[in-house]
Amino acid sequence: MTPAQIIRRKRDGEELTPADIRELFRGYTAGMVAEYQMSAFLMAVFFNGLSATELTELVNVMIGSGAVADLHSIPALKVDKHSSGGVGDKTSIIIAPLVAALGVPVPMMSGRGLGHTGGTLDKLEAIPGFRTDLTLQQYRAQIEKIGCSLIGQTQEVAPLDRRLYALRDVTATVESIPLIASSIMSKKLAEGIDALVLDVKTGNGAFLPDRERATHLARTMLDIGAGHGKKVVALITAMDRPLGFAVGNALEIEECVLTLHGEGPADLRELCLVLAAEMLVIGGAYDSLDEARMHAAAALDDGRAADKMREVIQAQGGNPSVLEDPAILPQAEVTCVIEADRDGYIGDMDVRAIGEAAVKLGAGRRTLGDEIDPSVGFHITIKPGDKVTKGQPMATIHARTPSNASKAAAALRAAMPVADEPGVCLPLIIERLTP
Amino acid sequence: MTPAQIIRRKRDGEELTPADIRELFRGYTAGMVAEYQMSAFLMAVFFNGLSATELTELVNVMIGSGAVADLHSIPALKVDKHSSGGVGDKTSIIIAPLVAALGVPVPMMSGRGLGHTGGTLDKLEAIPGFRTDLTLQQYRAQIEKIGCSLIGQTQEVAPLDRRLYALRDVTATVESIPLIASSIMSKKLAEGIDALVLDVKTGNGAFLPDRERATHLARTMLDIGAGHGKKVVALITAMDRPLGFAVGNALEIEECVLTLHGEGPADLRELCLVLAAEMLVIGGAYDSLDEARMHAAAALDDGRAADKMREVIQAQGGNPSVLEDPAILPQAEVTCVIEADRDGYIGDMDVRAIGEAAVKLGAGRRTLGDEIDPSVGFHITIKPGDKVTKGQPMATIHARTPSNASKAAAALRAAMPVADEPGVCLPLIIERLTP
Repeated sequence: MTPAQIIRRKRDGEELTPADIRELFRGYTAGMVAEYQMSAFLMAVFFNGLSATELTELVNVMIGSGAVADLHSIPALKVDKHSSGGVGDKTSIIIAPLVAALGVPVPMMSGRGLGHTGGTLDKLEAIPGFRTDLTLQQYRAQIEKIGCSLIGQTQEVAPLDRRLYALRDVTATVESIPLIASSIMSKKLAEGIDALVLDVKTGNGAFLPDRERATHLARTMLDIGAGHGKKVVALITAMDRPLGFAVGNALEIEECVLTLHGEGPADLRELCLVLAAEMLVIGGAYDSLDEARMHAAAALDDGRAADKMREVIQAQGGNPSVLEDPAILPQAEVTCVIEADRDGYIGDMDVRAIGEAAVKLGAGRRTLGDEIDPSVGFHITIKPGDKVTKGQPMATIHARTPSNASKAAAALRAAMPVADEPGVCLPLIIERLTP
Repeated sequence: MTPAQIIRRKRDGEELTPADIRELFRGYTAGMVAEYQMSAFLMAVFFNGLSATELTELVNVMIGSGAVADLHSIPALKVDKHSSGGVGDKTSIIIAPLVAALGVPVPMMSGRGLGHTGGTLDKLEAIPGFRTDLTLQQYRAQIEKIGCSLIGQTQEVAPLDRRLYALRDVTATVESIPLIASSIMSKKLAEGIDALVLDVKTGNGAFLPDRERATHLARTMLDIGAGHGKKVVALITAMDRPLGFAVGNALEIEECVLTLHGEGPADLRELCLVLAAEMLVIGGAYDSLDEARMHAAAALDDGRAADKMREVIQAQGGNPSVLEDPAILPQAEVTCVIEADRDGYIGDMDVRAIGEAAVKLGAGRRTLGDEIDPSVGFHITIKPGDKVTKGQPMATIHARTPSNASKAAAALRAAMPVADEPGVCLPLIIERLTP
């Protein structure tokens, strides 16, 4: 078939064969299918979706476009976790060493901050000296040695995904669930994993705020994982308030350190334990989620998780004393406390606005070339529904200048208003999905 | 707005402003909007359509991309007819001189054969010497002098439409009613007309076989015409059998000559009179369709229409003796008659297959570079529902070789089967639409 015929079939809601998908995407890679044909195809996919068969083949082609990490030399089941991203979502940095400490290897390739959400790589790089740009060989050697490696997606992995993403970005075809799912899963499957736990966020701070679309994304990723013979499980979790208290790179690392020492905010610890238990069971370390959770809690409380993180930081060139003295992390010049301006309750939060305010402070990038300031961010100690009295501290802003701090204060006040009626939080864990 | 933002709004079903449309399409013309962005936009239009306001502005931009014929020096209302195309549809060549003979100037720019349908230009060029490549100045001068000019769409008219069509062709975005309508209407409005009669075909030989889609196309074109301050009327007419008997360029010219002399097949004469009456009324020559039709019939019967055609042929370099002696037209080497192989009735016809068989004989082009053989085609004297007896002639094939003729005979037999039950024809004129 010609590219136009393949596009027409997708446009008209017909299912393409795996051979059609290969022809189109390999033709694109080889320069035989033009950018303007691919963008028309992607828009047709936006409207008509992709079937499970089509998706499986698309993911195959994306994986096959680059290098795949070969972790067969490591006998245990390798398990990763992927989060669809949110504000204050720092679970990867806690879970990876925690799960590895309990004997399940965690090969983890993460991304940078995108839009209003932070990125694991940016957070890790707040640790002085920490390097995320390992080669695939160094990555494998480290997993073999200490059971965990936290790196960035290298240029070698799924280059077709990067090319497609750049095209989608300028043709308004980003917000397509099968395209989002295939982009995520092709990179995850190229990591060399055997199993994957998905944490798909819903609520106004999530990429897909709508619950139904979040579930659709989770189901689509589960289908892809299952279609590729991997064990997968997905949780739909709350992103209608920041996770934990800290938003901003160094502040979040500090909160991770607390949590790795058995402290930290309750919601963050809870989600980490739930996700870690899933990873430990899917990785074969324990038979039941309850048992796995109990062991995970113990590993946080007795220092084993923190010890594993120390090994990871050391292996990747960072300063492990951050685990004892978070004050070595970059510190902001200016801090200011926001107090409740009246008695009342914390209403519903605009979490996306909180994330955007953090990006404006310098915690994230507005354009690709922007430099991140690891020291800035927020420490928000209230949640929707909390009762507050006038003058009670609600948040601390960490900024580079007083002017930045005052702009951020205005944005934060608007995003977490004190109201007559208490806001209502979604349950932290909303739903558990299996293929 | 960025191109991606404009595409996103169309994708999400929002209405664009005229400024958005101008920004996008002028940006495209200027090379600021990439082909891959335009193709994604066109695919979004395929799914979400265009509003009347969006369409009006798109047509404005398309017209403004090239030259517009200025016929203001001609005081009368200038009226053209557009047909959505079919098999054996030769009405333009009869109507243009007929309407001009009754005092309404007809500026007519036509196209070439497309797919399974013939094109007015290809038919006219079967007349020895006839030239359709006049400049806009020659075109206007001829309308001033003799009231009618039959030319091709020059390169100067709506170049943006040509560029968009080429992109649509390779990105499966041709079959979009607003895009079809804007393509047709931008070229028609650039002709310098005051009023337009639309003949939109329905039935299996039409570009849009589905009645509802044909009506949608007609309504969309009426809206565009009205939005540009033109008088417009549309007829939905039958294309579930060829129009007249002749299919093929020289054969169709011969049938036009007969019709211009008051003879010719009844259905062809009838449709020409109905369309001519609409043009004469909309052009202000007569007050009622009945009156206009009576005068049009008289002009066919008393030779005035043929005389006007003689002037047109002479003005455009053709041999006017074709009007007395159609034998000067190119003649096929081989003719063969198809007879009914049994007693029965003509069933439903596959008109698209008949058109495709004519293209295969050489009456049309399969690829852009193909040369047309003006002499070949069919003369089909039966219609669906006709009673036939075994051995009765049904059609004559005009071909270049016996082998071509025999392939065409097989295709024709399959496309117009003799059956136990009579096929049913759509009414010739199905519906009349006004803005």
